[in-house]
Amino acid sequence: MSEKTKILLDEDEMPTQWYNIVADLPEPPPPALHPGTHQPATAEDFAPLFPKALVEQELSTERYIDIPGEVLDVYRLWRPSPLFRARRLEKLLDTPAKIFYKYEGVSPAGSHKPNTAVPQAWYNAREGIRKLTTETGAGQWGSSLAFACVQFGLECEIWQVAASYLAKPHRRTMMETWGGKVHPSPSNVTEFGRKLLAENPDHPGSLGIAISEAVSEAMEDETVRYALGSVLNHVLLHQTIIGEEALLQLAKVDETPDVLVGCTGGGSNFGGLAFPFLREKLSGNINPVVRCVEPAACPTLTKGEYRYDFGDTEGLTPLMKMHTLGHGFVPEPIHAGGLRYHGMAPLVSHVYELGLVEAIAVPQLECFSSAIKFARSEGIVPAPEPTHAIAATIREALDCKESGQEKTILTALCGHGHLDLASYDRYLRGEMKDLELSDDVIKKAMLDVPEIV
Amino acid sequence: MSEKTKILLDEDEMPTQWYNIVADLPEPPPPALHPGTHQPATAEDFAPLFPKALVEQELSTERYIDIPGEVLDVYRLWRPSPLFRARRLEKLLDTPAKIFYKYEGVSPAGSHKPNTAVPQAWYNAREGIRKLTTETGAGQWGSSLAFACVQFGLECEIWQVAASYLAKPHRRTMMETWGGKVHPSPSNVTEFGRKLLAENPDHPGSLGIAISEAVSEAMEDETVRYALGSVLNHVLLHQTIIGEEALLQLAKVDETPDVLVGCTGGGSNFGGLAFPFLREKLSGNINPVVRCVEPAACPTLTKGEYRYDFGDTEGLTPLMKMHTLGHGFVPEPIHAGGLRYHGMAPLVSHVYELGLVEAIAVPQLECFSSAIKFARSEGIVPAPEPTHAIAATIREALDCKESGQEKTILTALCGHGHLDLASYDRYLRGEMKDLELSDDVIKKAMLDVPEIV
Repeated sequence: MSEKTKILLDEDEMPTQWYNIVADLPEPPPPALHPGTHQPATAEDFAPLFPKALVEQELSTERYIDIPGEVLDVYRLWRPSPLFRARRLEKLLDTPAKIFYKYEGVSPAGSHKPNTAVPQAWYNAREGIRKLTTETGAGQWGSSLAFACVQFGLECEIWQVAASYLAKPHRRTMMETWGGKVHPSPSNVTEFGRKLLAENPDHPGSLGIAISEAVSEAMEDETVRYALGSVLNHVLLHQTIIGEEALLQLAKVDETPDVLVGCTGGGSNFGGLAFPFLREKLSGNINPVVRCVEPAACPTLTKGEYRYDFGDTEGLTPLMKMHTLGHGFVPEPIHAGGLRYHGMAPLVSHVYELGLVEAIAVPQLECFSSAIKFARSEGIVPAPEPTHAIAATIREALDCKESGQEKTILTALCGHGHLDLASYDRYLRGEMKDLELSDDVIKKAMLDVPEIV
Repeated sequence: MSEKTKILLDEDEMPTQWYNIVADLPEPPPPALHPGTHQPATAEDFAPLFPKALVEQELSTERYIDIPGEVLDVYRLWRPSPLFRARRLEKLLDTPAKIFYKYEGVSPAGSHKPNTAVPQAWYNAREGIRKLTTETGAGQWGSSLAFACVQFGLECEIWQVAASYLAKPHRRTMMETWGGKVHPSPSNVTEFGRKLLAENPDHPGSLGIAISEAVSEAMEDETVRYALGSVLNHVLLHQTIIGEEALLQLAKVDETPDVLVGCTGGGSNFGGLAFPFLREKLSGNINPVVRCVEPAACPTLTKGEYRYDFGDTEGLTPLMKMHTLGHGFVPEPIHAGGLRYHGMAPLVSHVYELGLVEAIAVPQLECFSSAIKFARSEGIVPAPEPTHAIAATIREALDCKESGQEKTILTALCGHGHLDLASYDRYLRGEMKDLELSDDVIKKAMLDVPEIV
């Protein structure tokens, strides 16, 4: 068994429940607050945006939640996903460490995002919703939701940040291939969009603006709801299938991780891999170091403050207690677009505060240099986001070479980079730069964060 | 078992031999001829271009050839590849047919091409070769060879048709990510390229020109060899791992195909899937209809003549007996670039002449319309080449709906379309057209085909 490159699970070994870490935490996470009253947000507060079943999951303290059969049927198109032993990378690095990576790029959209898009679409369809709206930047989340919606006969309307819509047309085509309707944002479809276009017809847009457009479209119509691709509890819940599978796969080769490494943007990929392992850590079965890796240009956990802040730029969402750089913080345009978020999933922030996980920030040149090493040994060209996890994995493996320790490292390769090759091109031509982030920029953005007593 | 979506093989179930159909054919295939003497080409004739081991395979009549251990090690990065039961497509079509597809898009390069690139690189490395040269159009083959070369420390130099080099930069970036050196062709690296550039500095290039440049670079240096991605016997041999795996996978669910469908350009994907099934057909174990599907704009088998012709446009290669539209035939710029070849693998042509397989041609609008149906039900966005196989599969499945027959259909989804989304964009915007091919064009191209008695 230990000679294997891929550790596979058969379909009938696929986990049938998601894991809710809230049930096992030594302290409950601070609740989300209503943006007006600052009182804990209730199911009614979430109801205009999300279907009942997802609101229940958002507030749930149940340890396990059954995955519906029709969701499992769609998961089977790519799940269980493979766990790889990175033998060729180990050889290249000449390290005694054993490196394992869980690969989510096998999904139709090429990342972990469909793990939550599919159940979100299914629960909405079950409750009679006709259409889902969402925002997307580079398009990973929008394409995942378009794929999910077409599985259950839902319409999908996506506001894509105008700059990305124009510069990266291929993700848009992917969304349309799956039947999604895509607007550049700001758009002339919403009042807010029209206002911004009137001020500037060439407005490049931002994720915050796109969220506002998608949310307002959902609020106006009882048959329409909104879907979010990260940050929220129910999103992280759906992603735990990654970690549950990885636990089963490592058990097949009698391995337990000494170090677990995942990249963090909104936190759903990290939480998805790490939370089932944290359950085992909390129950004393294993004791891995669990490490978040974030971009040096958007160092939410390592440089942000743990405070209540808005999830969006405009301040429409409930207030969430999380590590934040300020909801008005606009990260530099790094290539790992999926990690450019001012905040962090409240559950990831909470486990960080509890000392269950640690965090580091890595600059993007080191990430791409590590990704090239990875691609040349393991074959897969990683998306820019997981290059952060790969960089941190390589750091750890080289430390092992130095110390002679045979650590077992587990990481998540949350997506492929087939639609991100322009970033590789910039790196290979020497046109990519590390972006400096001054503390003053963060300080200034933090001034707008509300004081919650 | 029969409820499954994916039929997987474990790594230790992966076939360890390639299958050489030459050993089992009722008549031996006509030999390749030396382009000057018109005498059967010998090992010495191939020696300047290919390493000894590959020349031996090219001329071999052995039934099985062992796959070297180091090649198996690289195959394990993505093989065995999954066999899918297309349940969601069946449901969409409301057909009683069972549709299975063997998916090769899981390879690092995203297609079946690494199945031969890897052994070609390994045999060259073992014989002390320093560098491989090749040509590529859209870049599928070039990227596969770059990936393969970097596994064994070989340099890889690729001449990419200038029009593609400029219009589709992402495949080039992929080649460079794996360490390949890419020239637009015509290039100023070779004498022939310089001559063409002097005549026209904006020359768009062609596959024929790119082959000439790659071949001439290999001929000039004892430490350099050339690699071809389709057509030749040893290439089809390496691809038979596809069909060998599919046989094992169908056996796991107690299925035998009634119809087997594969797209044909040079013939390596089709041969790879079909030849092991033809062995079983020849030995009387099964009796499937085996169908080649080619583009209506390049109908080699359905409209070409079975004659000796050159493999390249310039007439440098050995003469091969195959179905050809004439080596000077330039197919219209259809989106399935990998199927734009004037000839056909001699082994595929031979089994077609023997009546072991049949052939149809399908226009590209039907292909893309079928691909959209496939993507919306099965998730995977197919490369333009296998959309032909999907279109033919859907035709067959709809015939089954009409007749009520529960046929088992097997097809090959030889690659994903992540780097071909511009073609989907054209289709979705209604800008794609079916291209008419007049018989006169073929007649004219056939005039240059040499008469061999």
